[in-house]
Amino acid sequence: MTSKQVSIAVIGATGYTGVELVRLLQEHPQVKITHLTSESFAGKKFSECFPAFSGRVDTTLSPLDVDKMAKDLDLAFLCVPHQEAAKTVKLFLDKKVKVIDLSADFRLNDVKTYEAWYGPHPHPELLEKAIYGMPELQLSNLKNAELIANPGCYPTACLLAIAPLAHHKLIHLDSLIFDAKSGVSGAGRKLALGSHFCEVNENFKAYGIGKHRHTPEINQGIKKLTGQLPSITFTPHLVPMTRGILATVYAQLKSSSTHQDLLKIYQDYYQKASFVRLRPEGNFPETREVRNSNFCDIGFHLDTQNQRLTVVSAIDNLIKGASGQAIQNMNLMFGLEETCGLLQTSPIP
Amino acid sequence: MTSKQVSIAVIGATGYTGVELVRLLQEHPQVKITHLTSESFAGKKFSECFPAFSGRVDTTLSPLDVDKMAKDLDLAFLCVPHQEAAKTVKLFLDKKVKVIDLSADFRLNDVKTYEAWYGPHPHPELLEKAIYGMPELQLSNLKNAELIANPGCYPTACLLAIAPLAHHKLIHLDSLIFDAKSGVSGAGRKLALGSHFCEVNENFKAYGIGKHRHTPEINQGIKKLTGQLPSITFTPHLVPMTRGILATVYAQLKSSSTHQDLLKIYQDYYQKASFVRLRPEGNFPETREVRNSNFCDIGFHLDTQNQRLTVVSAIDNLIKGASGQAIQNMNLMFGLEETCGLLQTSPIP
Amino acid sequence: MTSKQVSIAVIGATGYTGVELVRLLQEHPQVKITHLTSESFAGKKFSECFPAFSGRVDTTLSPLDVDKMAKDLDLAFLCVPHQEAAKTVKLFLDKKVKVIDLSADFRLNDVKTYEAWYGPHPHPELLEKAIYGMPELQLSNLKNAELIANPGCYPTACLLAIAPLAHHKLIHLDSLIFDAKSGVSGAGRKLALGSHFCEVNENFKAYGIGKHRHTPEINQGIKKLTGQLPSITFTPHLVPMTRGILATVYAQLKSSSTHQDLLKIYQDYYQKASFVRLRPEGNFPETREVRNSNFCDIGFHLDTQNQRLTVVSAIDNLIKGASGQAIQNMNLMFGLEETCGLLQTSPIP
Amino acid sequence: MTSKQVSIAVIGATGYTGVELVRLLQEHPQVKITHLTSESFAGKKFSECFPAFSGRVDTTLSPLDVDKMAKDLDLAFLCVPHQEAAKTVKLFLDKKVKVIDLSADFRLNDVKTYEAWYGPHPHPELLEKAIYGMPELQLSNLKNAELIANPGCYPTACLLAIAPLAHHKLIHLDSLIFDAKSGVSGAGRKLALGSHFCEVNENFKAYGIGKHRHTPEINQGIKKLTGQLPSITFTPHLVPMTRGILATVYAQLKSSSTHQDLLKIYQDYYQKASFVRLRPEGNFPETREVRNSNFCDIGFHLDTQNQRLTVVSAIDNLIKGASGQAIQNMNLMFGLEETCGLLQTSPIP
Repeated sequence: MTSKQVSIAVIGATGYTGVELVRLLQEHPQVKITHLTSESFAGKKFSECFPAFSGRVDTTLSPLDVDKMAKDLDLAFLCVPHQEAAKTVKLFLDKKVKVIDLSADFRLNDVKTYEAWYGPHPHPELLEKAIYGMPELQLSNLKNAELIANPGCYPTACLLAIAPLAHHKLIHLDSLIFDAKSGVSGAGRKLALGSHFCEVNENFKAYGIGKHRHTPEINQGIKKLTGQLPSITFTPHLVPMTRGILATVYAQLKSSSTHQDLLKIYQDYYQKASFVRLRPEGNFPETREVRNSNFCDIGFHLDTQNQRLTVVSAIDNLIKGASGQAIQNMNLMFGLEETCGLLQTSPIP
Repeated sequence: MTSKQVSIAVIGATGYTGVELVRLLQEHPQVKITHLTSESFAGKKFSECFPAFSGRVDTTLSPLDVDKMAKDLDLAFLCVPHQEAAKTVKLFLDKKVKVIDLSADFRLNDVKTYEAWYGPHPHPELLEKAIYGMPELQLSNLKNAELIANPGCYPTACLLAIAPLAHHKLIHLDSLIFDAKSGVSGAGRKLALGSHFCEVNENFKAYGIGKHRHTPEINQGIKKLTGQLPSITFTPHLVPMTRGILATVYAQLKSSSTHQDLLKIYQDYYQKASFVRLRPEGNFPETREVRNSNFCDIGFHLDTQNQRLTVVSAIDNLIKGASGQAIQNMNLMFGLEETCGLLQTSPIP
Repeated sequence: MTSKQVSIAVIGATGYTGVELVRLLQEHPQVKITHLTSESFAGKKFSECFPAFSGRVDTTLSPLDVDKMAKDLDLAFLCVPHQEAAKTVKLFLDKKVKVIDLSADFRLNDVKTYEAWYGPHPHPELLEKAIYGMPELQLSNLKNAELIANPGCYPTACLLAIAPLAHHKLIHLDSLIFDAKSGVSGAGRKLALGSHFCEVNENFKAYGIGKHRHTPEINQGIKKLTGQLPSITFTPHLVPMTRGILATVYAQLKSSSTHQDLLKIYQDYYQKASFVRLRPEGNFPETREVRNSNFCDIGFHLDTQNQRLTVVSAIDNLIKGASGQAIQNMNLMFGLEETCGLLQTSPIP
Repeated sequence: MTSKQVSIAVIGATGYTGVELVRLLQEHPQVKITHLTSESFAGKKFSECFPAFSGRVDTTLSPLDVDKMAKDLDLAFLCVPHQEAAKTVKLFLDKKVKVIDLSADFRLNDVKTYEAWYGPHPHPELLEKAIYGMPELQLSNLKNAELIANPGCYPTACLLAIAPLAHHKLIHLDSLIFDAKSGVSGAGRKLALGSHFCEVNENFKAYGIGKHRHTPEINQGIKKLTGQLPSITFTPHLVPMTRGILATVYAQLKSSSTHQDLLKIYQDYYQKASFVRLRPEGNFPETREVRNSNFCDIGFHLDTQNQRLTVVSAIDNLIKGASGQAIQNMNLMFGLEETCGLLQTSPIP
């Protein structure tokens, strides 16, 4: 590990992924937080907005000013809505500032797919520069990337659950069902009736059935792993809790196997993945076991009667599903230790 | 509707299903609560244990004494653990008192299946008397039944979701996946680390994967509907909330269809089912919309690309999944209006 | 009880107090729901907005049109914001339709106090017509009232806790501290960051310290009971739950007493109060014991060392604290049985 | 700061305070975790019991064996029930191992008071060795202490709220009311109906009114600060959340003052207290702002009409209220930097 300091800005620092970036980065030994931006709270101290940071991060929030910021920046983390993100990416790249974009704008390689799900892309010409930042899939070298598209929270949980099997083409792609459950912070800090406490508490529901925007991202991920574009079923659900995603994934094996053989395949595939932890047979992760951490825990059950596999993966949607993975990507981008600043253990309870 | 009064006892009145029976029955216009039993709280008033009932149900709890109780009883609701339940059923039937058993003891027709999942059956000779009490499946005439096996909570949500399609043999049975999510009251009031507030709150997990005891009951239900014993996949999950079950069911259609055609099939099948409510296309039930009610709400999505159906059903696990369905069964058993005492609307929020 | 039907309208039927009125009134044997209004959802069925009411209340929501509605109305329940409420009250009274106003507009008799806390009063001339509708305080005859001001949720819990002692002038008024805790539904259904699930869940806070608008209403209530205007301390807190208020009230006795004597005073004072339940010594109410009910449960502890009394009262903020009390007021206004339609027992759990 | 490593054991490592010690200590740069004990889980790895620690703390749990452990230990943290704790303290002190006891056994100096609230004290002769470990009160020099009594969670929140005023004798001691609210983890991990999810969720209650064991500890703390033993009123409440205590404290000022003057007094008193943060006028702490941190945040409101002060303090009951404060005490005991290993910022949300 070098002793260099990466000078960073968080653009959109007062949303949930922004705050979480600030929290993790302020304790990261090789990062210097240079700018925090917010349009709504510009002029206030970060710690006035979030008293939990009082005495820790008293930086004054500023409006976005790329020209000014670019002078002393190595990297900008973008936590702004899609489309606005693409425009901001362009501004930073033009100034030679690297970007990790937490929006959806550069996750899908194919501009037509993007436009079918999100509308017109402001800068399709930048798509080819973007690298999809899920290091465990070993799809690209992140070192020296200029623009990293940070994956969606659901795709992170779903793809990590199934990647070893997809990579080895052990499953029928048309059998893939992703039944995923998320805490409410996945919907962000913006106001919406669906995030009102009284509408969520003591309630459980599915939403976006058959039309959630993370569907093409999961399909694309599987295509990258297998060469084939599948047509998965993806059903997200809302859990009355703040953080966490649990994905329950169903897949039909192409030929009969044993738990032991499959576990070996997972272990080999994730041998160098510091943040993936595999559970022994009969043991499955719970979201609290990865809460406030960058780990993705995975367990699975093989029904030998019908060769159907049930895989369960758990992440913290704001960390491995967003800000933590973004920092992991930053570490790799700048040649730092991949785990640097990211080895916190979940508090129990 | 006749004006008769059914004289009932609740055996095991201080567990969650017992209390819920008492709450619903005290407001039922054709029921007289004659005895409430509890071994641990015998001698105390019911309202001392549950101050919410103060001035409403001040009955003194007594220990079980079948001989004494039988004299003035038409019906006993059993809310005691399996195996203990079968023994108690025998005692009441011998005294010509009808029984609705909320345990698992008489849900499975096949004694071998029962014993594989629950251990030795105390009274296998009574199995043939037992009628499985899920009225919407129209499997048996409940009127004049002596012994009704009240269904499990998960099987209620799962079977109602899929019954019309199973009945008409429209789906590949080997494709059936039941991804179900339940509130904590499903585990009852007994003490267990898994029900400790701090272990459940801000957590989501799967449990009993590949080995939950409701699996054979769902298999049996589908066999009754189709003539074929399937090998389903059933994955229960624990939601940090008190009440409610949401079942997300995946099934492969045998031949292509449309939403409209399938909705017609559901509507016809449930034409006389007062407690099943079907949602229009694109609309899916949430657990709060059936909380504290006896309704089962159902919505579905057809992915026409791969003829995969996603069905979502919601119930209150303690009402339609237990005590409410038991009262519905009682109404039918005694020739009362099926909906009598059961038409409460869920409080919002 | 007469067999008359009261024809009612709920103005603002899609907020939490509106929905709760609809739920309770549709099961009230002597009420006919004639109109439900909503500006935002006019034209939709009530059950489209709230699928829990599907098949139960399928009334179409209409915009407010007093002229048209007045023709077949006996009573309008107003669930609209203060100031807008006063204007609507005027319109209905002019058409000889009685009103129960759930806003704050007619709770304070003194227009100056109102204006200091809420701003200009649209119709101060109507203040003298308004009767404060907390029947247990026995301050006025509600029968034949034209306009009832339905009390605030906190004042209901706070005043019922202390009324017998205040009435008998047993306590030092300057010692009164009301430490109150409410579920989130008290803030209504409107969008606000403070009601966002992630901001409330796993959090507890005080709010509005020294400046909550229910303060003058509590002061006024005590003045009505004692003849003296006190200067109370009132601290509201937000509990991460949907429903319920618990008020912990501290008061210094003027002269030494015993638990037994004080209990006698409470019992006598509340002898005819069907919805107040007193707990025996050492027993205190919890909010779940009155949830979804119109009861107010009260327990107290006397510290004989320093003659300080700790009184705990619990209500459901949406029922006894709003819609239930409004129906109780309606019952009295129209000469019906006070408890009619309001004797539901809280579900446990 | 020296570079020494303190070799420690956690006795009772599988309760909530034990786990939290392990989590914080494993990341503490000057601590070596040498032994973790558990009677129920001896022989299992810590990470088998708590999969969140997988790959982080894989230490095998052992039964308590003081003779064996004492050889390589500097310090034992005791997380065992009172009375058992005192016996274990004796064993360690006899072996020259220092102890920080998280139980109540050495918190009260006066053996009679202890015995009135907790029963016979196993080792009253050790009471004079014990130092009460709340560093902010500046009552004792903790450096080189052999035995530190770690304060209770409620007394920590309550005393820190009021210490500056008590120290300067600005308040009427007989006016002190502590209305405190705690998350459920304060009751520990042991099974009890009162900690069952369904009994806590959507509920709020007071408990232990007039008889909670933290009362004498708060009284003693105030006596240490003022020289006078008060007779406070302390009312704990249970909040449906896992972590956090909010104390709302009411006190009558002896003479009139201003917010500014009082804030100055707090600021001066807590000048060197790294973990106490004072809020500006009109701003009050929420429990989430100190969750998972060792901070105690304090805000207050002065009602100048009646010279009554409302002080609000917030802590994480498992950190500043238990394990964090214990580590803070360890740091001081061994001459390390007071804040070492304890400067985590609360995650938002």
